[in-house]
Amino acid sequence: MSLQLLKALNQLRSTRSLLYHLQSPTWTSNCDHIANKAIAATGKVFFTTTTTTSATLTSPTPSQSWGTKKQKRSVKLRAAAADFIMSNPEIEKQLAPLRERVQEQGNLVRELKAKGAAELDVKKAVAELKVRKKLLEEKELALTPSVVSFDRAKMEDLLKRRFFYDQSFAIYGGITGQYDFGPMGCALKSNILSLWRQYFALEEQMLEVDCSILTPEPVLKASGHVERFADLMVKDVKTGECFRLDHLIKQALEKLCKAKEATAELKAECEDIIIKLDGYNKQELADILSKFNIKSPLTGNDLTEPIEFNLMFATQIGPTGLVKGFLRPETAQGIFVNFKRLLEFNQGKLPFAVAQIGNSFRNEISPRSGLIRVREFTMAEIEHFCDPTQKDYPKFVNVKQEVMTLYSACNQMDGKSAQQLSIGEAVGSSLVANETLGYYMARIQQFLLAIGIKPECLRFRQHMSNEMAHYACDCWDAEILTSYGWVECVGCADRSAYDLGQHTSATGVRLVAEKRLPAPKTIEVSEIVPNKQALGKTFKKEAKTITEALAKLTLEEINQVEEQLTNKGHYKLTLTDGSAHQLEKDTIQVKRSSKTIHVEEFIPSVVEPSFGIGRIMYALLEHNFQCRDGDEQRCYFTLPPIISPLKCSILPLSNNADFQPFTQQLSSSLTKAELSHKVDDSSGSIGRRYARTDEIAIPYGITVDFDTLKTPHTVTLRDRDSMKQVRVGVEEVVGVVKDLATAKVKWEDILQKYPIFEQQEATK
Amino acid sequence: MSLQLLKALNQLRSTRSLLYHLQSPTWTSNCDHIANKAIAATGKVFFTTTTTTSATLTSPTPSQSWGTKKQKRSVKLRAAAADFIMSNPEIEKQLAPLRERVQEQGNLVRELKAKGAAELDVKKAVAELKVRKKLLEEKELALTPSVVSFDRAKMEDLLKRRFFYDQSFAIYGGITGQYDFGPMGCALKSNILSLWRQYFALEEQMLEVDCSILTPEPVLKASGHVERFADLMVKDVKTGECFRLDHLIKQALEKLCKAKEATAELKAECEDIIIKLDGYNKQELADILSKFNIKSPLTGNDLTEPIEFNLMFATQIGPTGLVKGFLRPETAQGIFVNFKRLLEFNQGKLPFAVAQIGNSFRNEISPRSGLIRVREFTMAEIEHFCDPTQKDYPKFVNVKQEVMTLYSACNQMDGKSAQQLSIGEAVGSSLVANETLGYYMARIQQFLLAIGIKPECLRFRQHMSNEMAHYACDCWDAEILTSYGWVECVGCADRSAYDLGQHTSATGVRLVAEKRLPAPKTIEVSEIVPNKQALGKTFKKEAKTITEALAKLTLEEINQVEEQLTNKGHYKLTLTDGSAHQLEKDTIQVKRSSKTIHVEEFIPSVVEPSFGIGRIMYALLEHNFQCRDGDEQRCYFTLPPIISPLKCSILPLSNNADFQPFTQQLSSSLTKAELSHKVDDSSGSIGRRYARTDEIAIPYGITVDFDTLKTPHTVTLRDRDSMKQVRVGVEEVVGVVKDLATAKVKWEDILQKYPIFEQQEATK
Repeated sequence: MSLQLLKALNQLRSTRSLLYHLQSPTWTSNCDHIANKAIAATGKVFFTTTTTTSATLTSPTPSQSWGTKKQKRSVKLRAAAADFIMSNPEIEKQLAPLRERVQEQGNLVRELKAKGAAELDVKKAVAELKVRKKLLEEKELALTPSVVSFDRAKMEDLLKRRFFYDQSFAIYGGITGQYDFGPMGCALKSNILSLWRQYFALEEQMLEVDCSILTPEPVLKASGHVERFADLMVKDVKTGECFRLDHLIKQALEKLCKAKEATAELKAECEDIIIKLDGYNKQELADILSKFNIKSPLTGNDLTEPIEFNLMFATQIGPTGLVKGFLRPETAQGIFVNFKRLLEFNQGKLPFAVAQIGNSFRNEISPRSGLIRVREFTMAEIEHFCDPTQKDYPKFVNVKQEVMTLYSACNQMDGKSAQQLSIGEAVGSSLVANETLGYYMARIQQFLLAIGIKPECLRFRQHMSNEMAHYACDCWDAEILTSYGWVECVGCADRSAYDLGQHTSATGVRLVAEKRLPAPKTIEVSEIVPNKQALGKTFKKEAKTITEALAKLTLEEINQVEEQLTNKGHYKLTLTDGSAHQLEKDTIQVKRSSKTIHVEEFIPSVVEPSFGIGRIMYALLEHNFQCRDGDEQRCYFTLPPIISPLKCSILPLSNNADFQPFTQQLSSSLTKAELSHKVDDSSGSIGRRYARTDEIAIPYGITVDFDTLKTPHTVTLRDRDSMKQVRVGVEEVVGVVKDLATAKVKWEDILQKYPIFEQQEATK
Repeated sequence: MSLQLLKALNQLRSTRSLLYHLQSPTWTSNCDHIANKAIAATGKVFFTTTTTTSATLTSPTPSQSWGTKKQKRSVKLRAAAADFIMSNPEIEKQLAPLRERVQEQGNLVRELKAKGAAELDVKKAVAELKVRKKLLEEKELALTPSVVSFDRAKMEDLLKRRFFYDQSFAIYGGITGQYDFGPMGCALKSNILSLWRQYFALEEQMLEVDCSILTPEPVLKASGHVERFADLMVKDVKTGECFRLDHLIKQALEKLCKAKEATAELKAECEDIIIKLDGYNKQELADILSKFNIKSPLTGNDLTEPIEFNLMFATQIGPTGLVKGFLRPETAQGIFVNFKRLLEFNQGKLPFAVAQIGNSFRNEISPRSGLIRVREFTMAEIEHFCDPTQKDYPKFVNVKQEVMTLYSACNQMDGKSAQQLSIGEAVGSSLVANETLGYYMARIQQFLLAIGIKPECLRFRQHMSNEMAHYACDCWDAEILTSYGWVECVGCADRSAYDLGQHTSATGVRLVAEKRLPAPKTIEVSEIVPNKQALGKTFKKEAKTITEALAKLTLEEINQVEEQLTNKGHYKLTLTDGSAHQLEKDTIQVKRSSKTIHVEEFIPSVVEPSFGIGRIMYALLEHNFQCRDGDEQRCYFTLPPIISPLKCSILPLSNNADFQPFTQQLSSSLTKAELSHKVDDSSGSIGRRYARTDEIAIPYGITVDFDTLKTPHTVTLRDRDSMKQVRVGVEEVVGVVKDLATAKVKWEDILQKYPIFEQQEATK
């Protein structure tokens, strides 16, 4: 691989998002694939409705916290449903010129690529395309009416106060990019994962595995992570403070442009550099650093030369210090290295899918954006192995009506919006490459909507041909709109045979499957049979190397051997180290035979849906954060009961001792029914206690009051979202909550069935 | 802390088991606590029915695998139920002299401690006690009739072949002490954890948390792990191969003793050293190495001096290389550092319990014994926080009848066997320290029996007073008998206020709770009020240090200050660095006032049940491994349906196309009922396919046969353990399996209700 390609790749990684897999090391000549990949990966940053540049350069040492005043600003979360925009001529009129500019540039990129233009020219054209796309997307967002007014600072305050999650080791000053999930966050996460298992592992009878986190170096060398999973950074020469190089240059040049004394010429130069930033290599970036005399933005000190910083956490396995290991940067490799056993477990048959839920680690240079970019995170990954020629999916018929918001590569190049169509249409028209990929995309959507993601804030964005790894034939990311912009939360890629091929080369263990041929096939086998004795005599200890080299010859080369042996009486073998050996006729022999084969070996294709659980959780919390009308201080989460951390609260109206037997009885019945719940018998008013349970998203509340003491014993049952209450018999209420919590009945049905309890919360 | 104590501690750690917590750094003078702790921690190794010394010195580099021929030996697993032995006079007669010798030595240890004998004398006496206990225990096991003949090699072969678990990265040569769980192992683990959540977290309304694995150094300094979580090792000077020092010496001396030329004198000397091995310090061990000229057992090369090797995996957090971190060696610290938030979440009230399930890491020098001693493992830990003066437990009444096999410290010292008594009696007689500890012990037992641990192979062993950390007031380990001997699988300790105290000292954040006093209390407050201006003028920048030192004075010291100020007109303050300052009357003033307080602050006590999930799984697999009578090749696991990896299989009798709609319908109904299952439509005979499903512990099998095609449509339902079959309607069968899998009905009930299907498996 050329150094330039390698450098481009480093750039690429530096902007890659959490869920994105490593590229293949065997690069093709379409370099634009590599450089331009950065576009969409950073795309979501550029699409944000707010920017967080102030946090960009924060030190990763224990100092930065979250939920501080810095982030106190109100952000409008907007619905970006394509149909709304497309059906509104007024908005379309404003967007038209921007769309045109994107399309114009998209066409230029296509043209350059078609005529095989120089790498750098393509790169620059793509960088410009990126900028135009960003302007369009921002305008689109600005023109879409907001669906909800969202105050991030208020939500973060609540999440911290009620310990959904918080910075790890806070009493020791905390570590940026690491979070502990408190009782509510942990229960929410665990409920999401358990629904995930139902939706995917159980539904598709996947094989779930649980592999080691500590991974020895050779495995991650084969996967490409050791060599290329790195960001460029520079250090403050005095304090040792580290900065991500691309972030640093961008910030410095933006500052230069804004300065009063900036000439038009300087501005143009800076803007040009910023646009092309992702295209520069290490030396070019170093030159920019020195040309503009960029210093540490925190201290003004000098900076080191750019350093490649591998994002994996390194350690030593065992006491010798000789076995180098890393914390895995993704869970997928654990599945690939076990492929043989898994195929065997599945009795040698394809297709089958393997699932894994587990923690992965990335030593980010400057983690930020709360749960969205962290150093330790939970992933849920699926590797679906199939015959590359058979990517249909029998159950596709069950989902083909599912309507999705698809933002195709083509639309992105043409400056068009995302479009809504059924996955059946999308696969039918080959917009989505195959049924297997389409099936998973539809199931991902169904899952995300089931846990409470707002449909208008979900889209599937296709990777553009120039941002997709060359081995992948199609790739769609489920992106969720949050106050940080569109965030990639689930990647769904057809990765072809790449990973299994890499581990096969590295280990010599053939990670392949077999399939029966439609009819037995007779094939000609040509091989070189060495005369071991003669070879050994002539070449001594070199004989082994020569024998191995001979076994690797292609059919064409074998033909040459035969020809030369016949004509010249010898064959000149050149080894990989460049040395040549003359093999005489008596040392080797070309043998040809025919063989009937019934099966064919092949490397399976892999379709990989990969879920970032922390990101999904964060988006979910944003989408479900609400404040009561007229009381901005009473905030709550409208999480669906199926994933709510707790299903029910029990609130005795007062600390009257007569209530206690009822409270205890209800609690033990709820436990028997496997319903998580919380008894709040503290002394606050009932309204205040309701508000406290609303804050932690408890969907239903049972209140024991004085009427409970009378026969027939009844309690009130309250719905979090509507705040309406009904009166239900003590014996019945647990069953009612169970049906509500498992979505067997709706609250509306309960309102119909039981007498409404009218007493106002505020009056209590 | 004295160096000698430190060395003793290192020894201690070197033999400590997976679940054991670190000792307090503030050692009391009973040093025997430390040295002797090693006794019981290694106890389980000495109690094994087979030894695995051949594996002791295996290199941790990728070479050693498991399930190899090395381990092919038959091991008798025996029931060690105390009542059997006690009620058998013949056996008692044989054991009596051994019991006497233990008791004699136990009394000697008591006596030495009572009269305050020298540390080393006590250590040696305890080492001897250990040896005598070992002899007794081995004899006991040998005399107990075996309950089951167990072939470990055969089980391991099955576990490997059907991929329950296997060495991680096997295609890369593997890493010792790391395992990947395949589909069956992962499902089993996940079912065990899910039942654990029901038994503990849900039942007791615990707060479950999910904390970071990467832990910054200061946290683990406070907990004591950085300083003392180490084993002694030596390295081969040429190959770098590492050996655990105590294992190495033991093996070398044992070999010396066995040599033909060994004199009686040499034998006696070696045996004496082996007995006292745990009592020696680093220098003494180095002397032994050199005296006996011990070399590498693999190469015969020289060895290095003993090195202290910390068992935590170290890494750097962030790019600067300045923030040192470790992979957590236990999950508990994540809970302790979050105590303040958790208490707040519980509205300031005690008691409450916090649970955490997660991975921990220990860089063992030479991992061995399969899943029992590994480098990466899943723990489930509970920290129950309570008022130290209120350790009663309201729900204790629910478990007090639970009969347990308790092996008390007293019985261990006296050479007696474990005894069976109810936990109610045990707490009543103060054998178990308090109701909270007793409640958890009973629940641990209920849980272990529910998942399928054999009751006769479970005991609770109390830590002897000289092996218990001085801060703990009682500690019982749930030990399970396996072919490796008694293995500590769950620790259950009353850890008092140790951990919260440590983190309070390290951070200055007061990890305390408050309780309302029965009546308000008036207290006298004495404090020194510095005259800041005068102090500053006299002492300049030293003033701050002086003010801080004054604030730390005890009541007694304040009285002295007052006395001296009155009598001499000044007070001489000595700082911790030894410097003294004379404070004149005008710089400070003693102020006395009275204050009414309503609440009292205290550091809560912690009761900690700590589960090693991998160890429990391994024991469970051993206890449930069976071979069919008369067919040693047909092995299976009798795992209870509730934790079986899959609940049901669907086997069409042949590949007749008419069976397919039934197979599909049944599969989708099972999915709807959330029952994990496996369809096996491969071409093997039905008997062979049953055998395959038995191997992976599937408890129930549905067969679709030609009778299924007739109306009313029926299938056969087969029970794994009895191999009996009944005929059930297609519409009913999923409900029946659901009831069986959730233990609502028993197989016996099904046999009563449905017609028995008599066709023999072998004939199909």
